[in-house]
Amino acid sequence: MRKVLTLDTINPNLIKVEYAVRGPIVDRALQIEKELKQGVSKPFKEVVKCNIGDCHATGQKPVTFIRQLTAVTTLPNLFDDKSIPEDAKSRAMAILSGCSGSSVGSYSHSLGLEVVRRNVAKYIYERDGVESNWEDIFLSNGATEAVKVLMQMISSGAQGNARAGVMIPIPQYPLYSATNSEFNNYQINYYLDENDNWALSRTELERALAGAKKECMPRAIVIINPGNPTGQVLSRQCMEDIIKFAVEHELVLLADEVYQHNVYQPEKFPWTSFKKVLSEMGSNYADKLELASLMSCSKGYMGECGFRGGYCELINFDPDVKAQLFKALSARLCPPLLGQVAMEAVVNPPKPNEPSYALFVKERDAVLNALKEKAELTYNSLNSLPNMSCNPVQGAMYAFPRIHIPPAAIQEAKIIEHSSGKCIFSLLQNYLSVQESSFSLDDNVIRTVPQNQMK
Amino acid sequence: MRKVLTLDTINPNLIKVEYAVRGPIVDRALQIEKELKQGVSKPFKEVVKCNIGDCHATGQKPVTFIRQLTAVTTLPNLFDDKSIPEDAKSRAMAILSGCSGSSVGSYSHSLGLEVVRRNVAKYIYERDGVESNWEDIFLSNGATEAVKVLMQMISSGAQGNARAGVMIPIPQYPLYSATNSEFNNYQINYYLDENDNWALSRTELERALAGAKKECMPRAIVIINPGNPTGQVLSRQCMEDIIKFAVEHELVLLADEVYQHNVYQPEKFPWTSFKKVLSEMGSNYADKLELASLMSCSKGYMGECGFRGGYCELINFDPDVKAQLFKALSARLCPPLLGQVAMEAVVNPPKPNEPSYALFVKERDAVLNALKEKAELTYNSLNSLPNMSCNPVQGAMYAFPRIHIPPAAIQEAKIIEHSSGKCIFSLLQNYLSVQESSFSLDDNVIRTVPQNQMK
Repeated sequence: MRKVLTLDTINPNLIKVEYAVRGPIVDRALQIEKELKQGVSKPFKEVVKCNIGDCHATGQKPVTFIRQLTAVTTLPNLFDDKSIPEDAKSRAMAILSGCSGSSVGSYSHSLGLEVVRRNVAKYIYERDGVESNWEDIFLSNGATEAVKVLMQMISSGAQGNARAGVMIPIPQYPLYSATNSEFNNYQINYYLDENDNWALSRTELERALAGAKKECMPRAIVIINPGNPTGQVLSRQCMEDIIKFAVEHELVLLADEVYQHNVYQPEKFPWTSFKKVLSEMGSNYADKLELASLMSCSKGYMGECGFRGGYCELINFDPDVKAQLFKALSARLCPPLLGQVAMEAVVNPPKPNEPSYALFVKERDAVLNALKEKAELTYNSLNSLPNMSCNPVQGAMYAFPRIHIPPAAIQEAKIIEHSSGKCIFSLLQNYLSVQESSFSLDDNVIRTVPQNQMK
Repeated sequence: MRKVLTLDTINPNLIKVEYAVRGPIVDRALQIEKELKQGVSKPFKEVVKCNIGDCHATGQKPVTFIRQLTAVTTLPNLFDDKSIPEDAKSRAMAILSGCSGSSVGSYSHSLGLEVVRRNVAKYIYERDGVESNWEDIFLSNGATEAVKVLMQMISSGAQGNARAGVMIPIPQYPLYSATNSEFNNYQINYYLDENDNWALSRTELERALAGAKKECMPRAIVIINPGNPTGQVLSRQCMEDIIKFAVEHELVLLADEVYQHNVYQPEKFPWTSFKKVLSEMGSNYADKLELASLMSCSKGYMGECGFRGGYCELINFDPDVKAQLFKALSARLCPPLLGQVAMEAVVNPPKPNEPSYALFVKERDAVLNALKEKAELTYNSLNSLPNMSCNPVQGAMYAFPRIHIPPAAIQEAKIIEHSSGKCIFSLLQNYLSVQESSFSLDDNVIRTVPQNQMK
């Protein structure tokens, strides 16, 4: 029967979207889980899904303070519960005073509760020593929503080489390629340097941009720091280079800084926000760069992905553009109130003189130490495997190993390719089940490259 | 200083978006609230915001069962709390068993927790007596997200008369015009008949569609039932007419049914789902119409707007299209877990033999009875005012009064218009501060019409 909506009639941009983090690998994992439940015998009993930074799914425990604060705001009877400490109650009271009808069941302002936005600004100020205006901050449905609305706003709505160009790192977090497709932005890939611990160089940025200039109107560059999925923490020099590059080429900088608490060797590889670096580079840069910084309650020591809490700070944006962005956000009414509550706990955690402090520090440090241990374990394990190598995991929650294919295997694959007519890359891809990318073969090393760059 | 992002470079569709529910009137209300806090003297002490169905903001109390369920899933220590009844605990247990790592801090499947989707299907089956497949249901961030993603999918991505056309009622809920602008759909206005209690007639639908056919590719019709902001409940005959119209003209039907619990005269004006009516019309229609039905935990007796819970059921959609839609949803990871929990409470409320039942029924009925009283009060009050009239509020949470301008006032306004050069409509608009619309003057009656229809 003929349908109204078919692949020929629906939005072609949606068809172009690829989002492998939630794609076939997850589907296969769910299928295996079902088989295990049905009693199918396998050499393992459980599926641990590490395709995404889903901390609680892999056994990390929630931080008590965050949950107590959320529970009291949800069920105000708990103000009478003696097991809930006073600092959780006082914050809950402040939040409920800011909620219409003193209920988290009411809509908040479309940019989020003023009390939380003010505490986000305070958190940023204490982190960076740089002023932050709470009215430049909007709360979002995870950092994801902020990414989507920024990418949508950057989109020119035009076709061909009038499309907006957005630079993204390769390897990347697939949200960026997905939202570029969704809003028909031209994706400009810049490559992180695996041999220099996934650093990015001005030379590579210039190369990528020059190659794309005839294809689009370059408008923005996405930087993920600490790196997802590459785990590096950018050096100050590298960040200054990026800022200079963005200002000189008139690009907005989207700084994905959601892993700012996940830094495992802070003495050797400290994390600094782009805002702080920018503020220290003098007015030639500090007053010019349009910078959006993203944060989330899903990562760090919190791992509260399901709460869908996040924020975005906009720096140096044109007030008219900010007004348009804020208007667009108003049509979705407001971010989830309990995600805002979780964000409040993150930006306004227990203080040393408060009753929750000791437990909070203990739980936070236990999570961060465990993540640090896992980072080292992953690094050591991958490097102990034959034909594998991996850079150290300085931050975030991911390792991105390199697979060295022995020359004999390549030789054999080439013979199969020749005799079967099948592409060697697809054979390898099937074998390795790597996420969003296909392969290129280069000096006996398999590298992931986005499919649109495949020859 | 020149900015990268300006009104000339950003996405022009976002600039076209209008969303008056969250626009200047709310801004003015917030300003007045601030003035009151600062001690400015006014003839009132409080601002009650009725621009949107924000129930808790206007004093409605949350339903205890929903909050208990949410609190236990959030803070599992509460399983030991004797004041939380067993039925809330058993549902919380079922939800947590469906959560990765037994935590609402983990991501769910991108379409929502299977346990909740299955209970949504059961709820629909019990409501309609028609089978519902849980895999056709996705949970959403309020009904709003479902509307947005459907409108985005329907968009052809093309320009000019290759744009997708979407029929929406006038008066409407401004989310529909906003998302049409956002995704560049051509908006086809059909007018509800105020003289027939906001019913819609096939004649009017045919008129509206015929007039738009050369401008766009008509693809969908939005029906809001019970009506927002018009408060009518559609008759079965009217619903059958709409279904026939949609099938004959090959239109997808988007049924906004979020007010399905807000029906104030069920004996005289019962509410029926489009799915049920469709299923009883024989296979010529039942197997053909592509129907999307939207529901939310923000309305009804719940009013849990801040939780951002909702669902959408897709009926007769092409599997390939459904797969594309579900893939697009996967990029935003998942709906807020606690919104899913609230939805679970709505579709799986306490049963007569369960401990929460008595209190649940008492609270639910208290809210619905109060809303019914307010509906009558509003109707009577508006009709008692000079030069005002209003249809009865049969459902939803809104009244849409008619303002009759006395002939002498019109005469005077015309003189002002002549002498001042100011438009009579804008003078009246300033005076009346009506939301998203401007006015047309017709038989001494002021009618709201969308601005793009103004002469």
